[in-house]
Amino acid sequence: MSRPVVLICLESPHSFWHFADRHAHTLRSAFPAVDFRVASSDSLNNQLPHAHVYFGWRFAADGIGLATRLVWIASPAAGTDHLPTAEAAAAGITVTRGYGYHAGPMTEHALGLILGFARGLFTSSRFQRTRNWWKDDLATEFFDLAGATLTVLGCGSIGTRLARTAQGLGMRVIGIRRTVPPDASSGITWMPATQTAHALALSDVVVNLLPATDDTWHFFDSALLNACKTGALFVNLGRGSTVDHTALLKCLDTGRLGGAALDVTEPRPLPMAHPLRRHPRVVLTPKSAAFSHRYMDEAVDFFAANLRRYLDGLPLNGVVLQPAPTPGGQAR
Amino acid sequence: MSRPVVLICLESPHSFWHFADRHAHTLRSAFPAVDFRVASSDSLNNQLPHAHVYFGWRFAADGIGLATRLVWIASPAAGTDHLPTAEAAAAGITVTRGYGYHAGPMTEHALGLILGFARGLFTSSRFQRTRNWWKDDLATEFFDLAGATLTVLGCGSIGTRLARTAQGLGMRVIGIRRTVPPDASSGITWMPATQTAHALALSDVVVNLLPATDDTWHFFDSALLNACKTGALFVNLGRGSTVDHTALLKCLDTGRLGGAALDVTEPRPLPMAHPLRRHPRVVLTPKSAAFSHRYMDEAVDFFAANLRRYLDGLPLNGVVLQPAPTPGGQAR
Repeated sequence: MSRPVVLICLESPHSFWHFADRHAHTLRSAFPAVDFRVASSDSLNNQLPHAHVYFGWRFAADGIGLATRLVWIASPAAGTDHLPTAEAAAAGITVTRGYGYHAGPMTEHALGLILGFARGLFTSSRFQRTRNWWKDDLATEFFDLAGATLTVLGCGSIGTRLARTAQGLGMRVIGIRRTVPPDASSGITWMPATQTAHALALSDVVVNLLPATDDTWHFFDSALLNACKTGALFVNLGRGSTVDHTALLKCLDTGRLGGAALDVTEPRPLPMAHPLRRHPRVVLTPKSAAFSHRYMDEAVDFFAANLRRYLDGLPLNGVVLQPAPTPGGQAR
Repeated sequence: MSRPVVLICLESPHSFWHFADRHAHTLRSAFPAVDFRVASSDSLNNQLPHAHVYFGWRFAADGIGLATRLVWIASPAAGTDHLPTAEAAAAGITVTRGYGYHAGPMTEHALGLILGFARGLFTSSRFQRTRNWWKDDLATEFFDLAGATLTVLGCGSIGTRLARTAQGLGMRVIGIRRTVPPDASSGITWMPATQTAHALALSDVVVNLLPATDDTWHFFDSALLNACKTGALFVNLGRGSTVDHTALLKCLDTGRLGGAALDVTEPRPLPMAHPLRRHPRVVLTPKSAAFSHRYMDEAVDFFAANLRRYLDGLPLNGVVLQPAPTPGGQAR
């Protein structure tokens, strides 16, 4: 095998999402036998034909035809709905996502949004400018996290981390996921997706972490949102496509939902005239739930560990879709 | 000893701070030998001459002359600066405060305020109404709690509880209190008050829980606020009188402080025209940090346990100021 070429294209206006010189230095020191090449978006297509491995935020479907030696696309993101996973698999290319390092910041973000509603902080920060004293307003709107029930949809590693902090504050946590883990040590009450409506009826807070897949489009439709406990808080840190925003708005207006905190919407950003923008019980964040100043450092560490597995011939971590085995077992 | 009379005056427009019929029932069931009398503010002075024990939010200094049989004033509040403690002690009356049940809601409140700044949530909830996309704004203002340092001033039971949750999120915690506890199991780095400036220079977040005493007036003066790490977040859930608000405003304007979250101010509420009201990096809450729907339930439980100690001749919990022993050891 010739010297493996790893092509890296991780540009961002945000320093914590940008692959910097120090990251290249880290990788080159750890893997002297690997040829690391850092590309800008503009120079990417010129470099793709040489790459065996690609580490980047984006990958256009038409890049697959150019990347004739490519066997692995590694994304540092948790969600890969923006990547041509199926096309890559059909071409014999494995796509991996990152995991583990999103849980910390997303737990902080979810908890901040939940507490902002529970303690009336968003209301308070508005009223401080217009009302002389607004203690009575907050006294009728706050709720205790201690003793409240949280349901997490798509409760994987991120949800499990959030659950641990929520439990520390006295919350009961229901976790819903496709495959219910046998391990009971987390203290989470696991339920299958078929029991979602039942879980929602019990929950003061719902955190949606569902990815965008064919199965999750408008998962939270009118029926499911109306299954929520009256006055519940709905938090979406997953994907906007998993929620019917018209139904969501209606549930806020009828009082079925007491509030909504949305880090993702469809479309994103919402048009300025969209009623969710100015709704008094809606807080929007600009897909900032995974913001962390350590993001790229940890993403590079994760990639480095996975690159070691690749070079050692071990199965990769975070595989999204595995290509079908080629006839004769020959890797691309 | 005649049948002891416990006079209760705990009125509030907020249900969770109001002594309800169910609370009276709880106490009468637990103490059939005690004569519990529930007074309104209007009827209080008529009933005071009969009371041996008083359980209430407020107690006017001129009530001491009327209450000739009184030996104990029990307040459910954590802070007792609104009670005539010294006058009561001089008259042989013990004043107690409540503790333990404030820690949960105040931890939720402090953490919500900290995360609201750390995740840019207060900024985001303003910008969602006026900016098409504000991801860049938040990318330059957020900070990670994980790895950050929190200093708690007046770090007693409330601060220790907050510390535990903050540690769970990866924060380092410095605790400052008059008497440093010998127990190291909390993981808190304890410092005496003389090292406050040193602690502040290390801290990304400062939570002030100081009570109002003669020693704490303007404890946070210009010198101490300017000892803070540049860009630090200052949170005050203690008493407004412990902070020089002119110096605080100046530190926000110079950028020494990155933000301030104030549950208490002096005066309270701040005048509508006060610049802290509209400051973009200030969040005010209306002394709601201890709001909990379980407040009165837990305050009554605390009082009941203390009443048992009183009837059994044991030392009371939560004593603020003990009267000097009377000659001959005769209790009032």
